[in-house]
Amino acid sequence: MTAAAASRPAFADTLLNALGPDSVLTAPDAIAPWLADWRGIYRGNAQAVVRPRTAAEVATCLALCSAERAPVVPRGGNTGLCGAATPDSRAQNVILSLDRMKAIRAIDTVANTLVAEAGCILGDLQRAAADAGRLLPLSLAAEDSCQLGGNLATNAGGVNVVRYGMARDLVLGIEAVLPNGEIFEGLRPLRKDNTGYDLKQLLIGSEGTLGVITAASLRLYAATPERQVVVAAVNDAGHALSLFELIYAKCGPRLQAFEYFTDACVDLLLEQVPTARFPFGARYPAYVLIELADTADAAALEALLEQVIGAALEAERCVDAVVSSSLAQINEMWALREEISEAQRADGPHLKHDVSLPIESIPTFLETVEPRVRRLCPDVRPIVFGHFGDGNLHYNLSRPLGSPRDFFQHEGEALTAEVLDEVMRYGGSISAEHGIGQLKREYFAKYKSPLEQRLMREIKAVFDPAGIMNPGKIF
Amino acid sequence: MTAAAASRPAFADTLLNALGPDSVLTAPDAIAPWLADWRGIYRGNAQAVVRPRTAAEVATCLALCSAERAPVVPRGGNTGLCGAATPDSRAQNVILSLDRMKAIRAIDTVANTLVAEAGCILGDLQRAAADAGRLLPLSLAAEDSCQLGGNLATNAGGVNVVRYGMARDLVLGIEAVLPNGEIFEGLRPLRKDNTGYDLKQLLIGSEGTLGVITAASLRLYAATPERQVVVAAVNDAGHALSLFELIYAKCGPRLQAFEYFTDACVDLLLEQVPTARFPFGARYPAYVLIELADTADAAALEALLEQVIGAALEAERCVDAVVSSSLAQINEMWALREEISEAQRADGPHLKHDVSLPIESIPTFLETVEPRVRRLCPDVRPIVFGHFGDGNLHYNLSRPLGSPRDFFQHEGEALTAEVLDEVMRYGGSISAEHGIGQLKREYFAKYKSPLEQRLMREIKAVFDPAGIMNPGKIF
Repeated sequence: MTAAAASRPAFADTLLNALGPDSVLTAPDAIAPWLADWRGIYRGNAQAVVRPRTAAEVATCLALCSAERAPVVPRGGNTGLCGAATPDSRAQNVILSLDRMKAIRAIDTVANTLVAEAGCILGDLQRAAADAGRLLPLSLAAEDSCQLGGNLATNAGGVNVVRYGMARDLVLGIEAVLPNGEIFEGLRPLRKDNTGYDLKQLLIGSEGTLGVITAASLRLYAATPERQVVVAAVNDAGHALSLFELIYAKCGPRLQAFEYFTDACVDLLLEQVPTARFPFGARYPAYVLIELADTADAAALEALLEQVIGAALEAERCVDAVVSSSLAQINEMWALREEISEAQRADGPHLKHDVSLPIESIPTFLETVEPRVRRLCPDVRPIVFGHFGDGNLHYNLSRPLGSPRDFFQHEGEALTAEVLDEVMRYGGSISAEHGIGQLKREYFAKYKSPLEQRLMREIKAVFDPAGIMNPGKIF
Repeated sequence: MTAAAASRPAFADTLLNALGPDSVLTAPDAIAPWLADWRGIYRGNAQAVVRPRTAAEVATCLALCSAERAPVVPRGGNTGLCGAATPDSRAQNVILSLDRMKAIRAIDTVANTLVAEAGCILGDLQRAAADAGRLLPLSLAAEDSCQLGGNLATNAGGVNVVRYGMARDLVLGIEAVLPNGEIFEGLRPLRKDNTGYDLKQLLIGSEGTLGVITAASLRLYAATPERQVVVAAVNDAGHALSLFELIYAKCGPRLQAFEYFTDACVDLLLEQVPTARFPFGARYPAYVLIELADTADAAALEALLEQVIGAALEAERCVDAVVSSSLAQINEMWALREEISEAQRADGPHLKHDVSLPIESIPTFLETVEPRVRRLCPDVRPIVFGHFGDGNLHYNLSRPLGSPRDFFQHEGEALTAEVLDEVMRYGGSISAEHGIGQLKREYFAKYKSPLEQRLMREIKAVFDPAGIMNPGKIF
């Protein structure tokens, strides 16, 4: 026995023997990069990282972990920001990475479906669909590093939810492996199948606590190459709301995105992102970015947008507007919205609150949450943006100018409690699209009804009686 | 004690005392109309029919039934056709009708949501949405008698699934009562809420076996007043498939319905439905009905339809086509498709098979299933129609001309077994939109994987440990 083998736990050897050295990492140096989340907020331990190439290998791994009672932490692209894919501190954890299961098994332009494995990068799937003349509408900031399996395990959202729904809404079928190693064969891409409970819905959004999604059949849509984007300046969130109502009534199915950001976001952008191009000559309290998209007839789409924006300006639902006239301009406008996160990161440590509200409550929520936050911390900087059309705000907080970088280590918890408490007062959700993970466990326990928590725990016990799947996440 | 009370079981008295005589029927004459399904195929017994007015009264009823271990059969509009809302033969059954819970609690044209109670008639909800300038897209033949609660409990489908998805896809939230009387408060109409397992998805499509849906928050869509309908004649299902591909690629989000029916359906229609108007001068092997709809611009929609139908005729994807030019004609064309069921009923007893297939398998399935059926019964008449764009066929069989009305009492089971077995060979579903109920229990047991059956039974035990909810349905 070599020295390396001697220091290796016996169960890691079992995994190595079953799956081969190519698929199992056990050396501390090899494991180290897998132990932290993307932001470096969470860090844990593990005895092995397993990187299977097939659902059968996933099944082998899980059956062995089940027998051993070894905790399993499934991992996709590690971009969820809630610590759901980071192990806890126990040395016996096994990290199960799907990153080598990246086959696109089928693209079908008659049935309008795409069947892909969990390790596929979302952006690659979007491009494969586009190459086939179809649209995979799931689109989010991390799309060039997140993986399909993680997207489904967290029921990802993004910028096109207002038109196409969440990741859940795109799923026709899944293949998954249960903790005991049984394979759930549910990939059939049927549009209609009313034969008992829809079990795949439990696995979608379960953050790896019930089993491991290994592949999925997704809906594709007709490509929408004709695009029109406008950035409109508004006096406040109430006006953004009235603009949303008008745009949806007039444009209906063409409304692809309706995003919101405040002028404080623009401040940060202009400070931190040298490439940012602000399209107005003056500054306004807030902005919305609206995208319309259609399968055909660019001229009709342009005319429609001009007409509704004209009506909105006349009715003072917005106070200024810049319409895109080229793909370069469209990309510049989107960069403005999409680089807010990067600008906030560059500015230093901050608090993220991915919340949703009944859309009509957004203006009042914004009015009432700010005094609560400022009572605790008068100079905190709210950086508010998000998917307004879905009622989804990223109500983030940056630290007071001149305060130390560890400011939120002391003040963060109390501020988060104020924000989430105010969200709940309006019947909102403490996690719109990122999930619970480790980040929001205590708030899940606080706000989710006892009935729902009990049902979830009992369902967890049905799928995972030994409790090996992603312990310490959600619950 | 009166004679009537003496003959009444004691538990019915308990229900009467708790809910009042206005809400509880116990006289055999009063109960009798509630004991059979719509087609009169299933018939059972019950000690009481309870008609609560509020979720709290539903909770009272279920808590009492739970304590008594009395079986509960939830009932909506009784239009599901699978016997899911009909009690079994036991005298202790309690029928729970939601027909008096018919309030529309809210319609919101900013959030585009409708909150309604389970007893609302679907057609009333469609009209309420239309009056508010919005579309509730769930649409099916029974819409003027089916109830929302039943639509959700069976995850209903219908003619607009190709564009808007199933009933499940329209649900933002539900309120439901669990068997022990606890109320699941999940009505919040949020577009995004990733806080644990999505429990409402289990209740949707569970056919009353897990609990009772008492209200729901539904998505509304922009109204699409501009409509164009075409009936196209095709040489076979393969050509219908190629037409579908063309239409979807060109019309994308405007494609509202893509229905199919064979010439044998037209024979029945012309025989049995005096008002039927066939739009062609000649007869063809099969037909598709296509509806396009949009929020605005009638001229553009008409031009689009003419262009794609022109292209389809030129490429011989269809051989003839009649385009609607008025609402009257649109209604006439739809009547042709929608009255096939009525024509088949008028023709006499028949077998219904509501199946779905991967859409590309439909032509081959139709080629291979017919010889299987004819081997058993050479003169049986396949009446094939359905929601082709969703892969959903009603592969119905009418009895041979001149055969006795009870023909299928002897031959039905073997024929159904052939049809469903062939569906499964193509990876299809034995129930596309009607559910399992009592009708397909044995096929559910035969075809659903043992793993899925086990998980469903264990989930059933989580929600309904005493097993009182709708016994003998699905499982």
